[in-house]
Amino acid sequence: MTDNRKITSSSPQRVRLDVNHMMTDTMGMRYGIAPEQVEDYAKAAAAAHAAVQAARGTGWLGWTELPYNQKKIVEKVKKVAGHVREHFDTFVVLGIGGSALGPIAVQWALNHPYYNQLPKAKRGGPRLYVEDNIDPERMGALLDVIEVQSTCFCVVTKSGNTAETMSQYLIISDLLKQAVGQGWQRHVIAITDAERGNLAPLAKAEGFEAFVIPDGVGGRFSELCPVGLLPAAVCGIDIDGLLAGAAFMDAACKTDRVWENPALLMATLQYIAMEDMGFNVHVLLPYADRLRFMADWVCQLWAESLGKNVTRRGMAINVGQTPAKALGVTDQHSQLQLYTEGPYDKVVTFFKVEKFQAEQPIPNGCKAYPDVAFLGGKSHNALIEAERKGTEYALYRAGRLSQTIVLPEVNAHTIGQLIFLWEMCTAYTGELLDIDAFNQPGVEESKAAAYAVLGHPGEKYAAKRAEMKKAPAGSGKYVV
Amino acid sequence: MTDNRKITSSSPQRVRLDVNHMMTDTMGMRYGIAPEQVEDYAKAAAAAHAAVQAARGTGWLGWTELPYNQKKIVEKVKKVAGHVREHFDTFVVLGIGGSALGPIAVQWALNHPYYNQLPKAKRGGPRLYVEDNIDPERMGALLDVIEVQSTCFCVVTKSGNTAETMSQYLIISDLLKQAVGQGWQRHVIAITDAERGNLAPLAKAEGFEAFVIPDGVGGRFSELCPVGLLPAAVCGIDIDGLLAGAAFMDAACKTDRVWENPALLMATLQYIAMEDMGFNVHVLLPYADRLRFMADWVCQLWAESLGKNVTRRGMAINVGQTPAKALGVTDQHSQLQLYTEGPYDKVVTFFKVEKFQAEQPIPNGCKAYPDVAFLGGKSHNALIEAERKGTEYALYRAGRLSQTIVLPEVNAHTIGQLIFLWEMCTAYTGELLDIDAFNQPGVEESKAAAYAVLGHPGEKYAAKRAEMKKAPAGSGKYVV
Repeated sequence: MTDNRKITSSSPQRVRLDVNHMMTDTMGMRYGIAPEQVEDYAKAAAAAHAAVQAARGTGWLGWTELPYNQKKIVEKVKKVAGHVREHFDTFVVLGIGGSALGPIAVQWALNHPYYNQLPKAKRGGPRLYVEDNIDPERMGALLDVIEVQSTCFCVVTKSGNTAETMSQYLIISDLLKQAVGQGWQRHVIAITDAERGNLAPLAKAEGFEAFVIPDGVGGRFSELCPVGLLPAAVCGIDIDGLLAGAAFMDAACKTDRVWENPALLMATLQYIAMEDMGFNVHVLLPYADRLRFMADWVCQLWAESLGKNVTRRGMAINVGQTPAKALGVTDQHSQLQLYTEGPYDKVVTFFKVEKFQAEQPIPNGCKAYPDVAFLGGKSHNALIEAERKGTEYALYRAGRLSQTIVLPEVNAHTIGQLIFLWEMCTAYTGELLDIDAFNQPGVEESKAAAYAVLGHPGEKYAAKRAEMKKAPAGSGKYVV
Repeated sequence: MTDNRKITSSSPQRVRLDVNHMMTDTMGMRYGIAPEQVEDYAKAAAAAHAAVQAARGTGWLGWTELPYNQKKIVEKVKKVAGHVREHFDTFVVLGIGGSALGPIAVQWALNHPYYNQLPKAKRGGPRLYVEDNIDPERMGALLDVIEVQSTCFCVVTKSGNTAETMSQYLIISDLLKQAVGQGWQRHVIAITDAERGNLAPLAKAEGFEAFVIPDGVGGRFSELCPVGLLPAAVCGIDIDGLLAGAAFMDAACKTDRVWENPALLMATLQYIAMEDMGFNVHVLLPYADRLRFMADWVCQLWAESLGKNVTRRGMAINVGQTPAKALGVTDQHSQLQLYTEGPYDKVVTFFKVEKFQAEQPIPNGCKAYPDVAFLGGKSHNALIEAERKGTEYALYRAGRLSQTIVLPEVNAHTIGQLIFLWEMCTAYTGELLDIDAFNQPGVEESKAAAYAVLGHPGEKYAAKRAEMKKAPAGSGKYVV
């Protein structure tokens, strides 16, 4: 299998957006979006573009500058990653949300599907575990397969207030003190705010190696800062390629012309689908195992940015599109029935890979069974694309809209492009919807209620407990 | 970690359904479902129950009898599984859709989270790989971590016409002939129709060990037949427990009283949510890593059964609910913002585990940081349930409906109960919607188009090619 981490191209190939199956030209008047509808929004799209451009690098748009302002940081990331690669056989990320989804997505995209199961020589880096849940059995299960003494733990939380991650920190720091004793701090790296919160001072006090999550970079936009760069570099991924890809896509988004800026076109069409056509579901359907968790990463970006209940002018709304993660061809056998014959409520985004890292021929055989023998002499490469085309055609016949993001191949550069495409698209869509795409106030209630249940002594939580006591208790008659 | 596969209980505990957060008693008139609304449907629910009862074991409801009519089959499964466990170190399932999702779900529920990475002695069975996609890199990647000579391949397709699975068969049979030579057939088990299709005669001709997918058991309902039983038994799972659990839940579904039959109550409430309230999204939110892929399994069952475009009376409709798979607590950090502040278009189903297989204490520490120190002395067990309650409360405060399926613990018996609960619920919901819940005509178009693209010489596909040529070609102006 070609080692795609080493692929460098002197003429990088652009990730392309194909929206033919969104448009009336292909889908027909009854089902599609007319180019005139897009033209109606061209000025609004240009305004959205201008607003994002004007806000670049400020407020919560610090992430736009990550492809350009991290030269020294990248050097430090590589240095620390090199040290980890040399001294540890396992790298465990303790993080959740963007701190986990980005690293997982990039690892799946760019490393071997069974990376952790490969022998060390073939693997090309320490094993990677991303611990993004606090299931009570999980830590024990991890300890069944790792040796703490040869493990480096990377604690990722901007505020140092993420209960899950800090509870994991308490557990592993205790284990390290017991297993390693003096010098246990060498097994911990912190990725957090420069100064604020709990983890920054803690890291300083303990002398942990630390990286900064820059201002203006929220969790779901953090993959191109050390949150993503460090785990990737530890696992041998070309982080320069990731950032170069992001910059490359950024250049493609310089224009405010809706038909020429892929992120802006995608945003405008999704706005029309959401707001004018009522399509409240967005299926992410990569036709490549490597892109399976890019779908999960997009799901957080899309759901958490656009699922809002107030506009910036203070108007009460309930906007957003539920992302549904899926995988081709697998989910043809699970979801396609619903997609083609269920409600008219969804848009499908295919991710197509033009050139895979391997050719998988299908040998001849089963001559007595023509429908099986037919497959002989073909390849999985041809089969997966034929099935993708078949699914696209089935959606077309059923009047269901789809668009396709085309990756020439999966490498660090194209993944960087993909990340930036979606981040920009999200920013533009937020502008069009006139919402704050960068906050997430809706998650506070759950946190406060959880801490109240746990008995946190703070005033805020005492008040929450009192409030929760007043809520209806529920009745045994509704339990079967 | 307690070996939950060995858990047998003389007094099995029932998986319960708690629908308090669906009802106006808790949610208020503005948001909830009134018990009177359920009463309005009580007769229809009883009729749905009667229809399913009358159809048991017939047509495509053969799956209802699987807990009762497989005594000999179970003996054979155990015998063959024992042979596999003794003679092979790896078991590879070649299957897709229900043939894959069921085995994956049960393996994740009942075996170690890092099963394949455990040393043999700790693992308690051969490694398991479920190859449910035809990504061109996937087979090569698998071959990087398995030895064909010590691998048993299980080919699962009722018709023997599943292109993905049969293409994989062509590949591995060729590899086995080369690597093993004479006697290679001992490395292959077929699970297929008794007589019809390609794989049944092929298995007979080659002398493969074979199991039958019984009549009346469709892919998404097949987990309790050899499709699921064999991989489970190979990996040391208590298949008698699975079947006993299914029977136990079946007994709870004997009554036609909507308030007393958990599957019927769930079906009726989902019907109201779908048809009366317009909730077209159904979030599956297990708060346990073990149940992560049960969510995927439910997604196929729910989407493929209920996503239909015609009633049984021939009325054109587009009905169905898009299932959105998620995981707690992880997706609080990804999707909860959308759930609480986005559109009012979804129902959330929590899966709660009362007793996990381990206690994970959180040690004391970080005294200088009160919000972190607060977690010390608690446990992940308390934290995960506090967060689940917190999320439930946040949804309640936001007027969003949820229900909770409560598992006393995760073991073969409760998983069997869970499987049967959802299968019965799906059957009842199909009755209420007056659709055929057991077919999937919508997937045929995609198959036919894929074969046409691949150049299949058959008449049907030549016609499809001609038809596809007439479709709009798409325009370069819509590619950015």
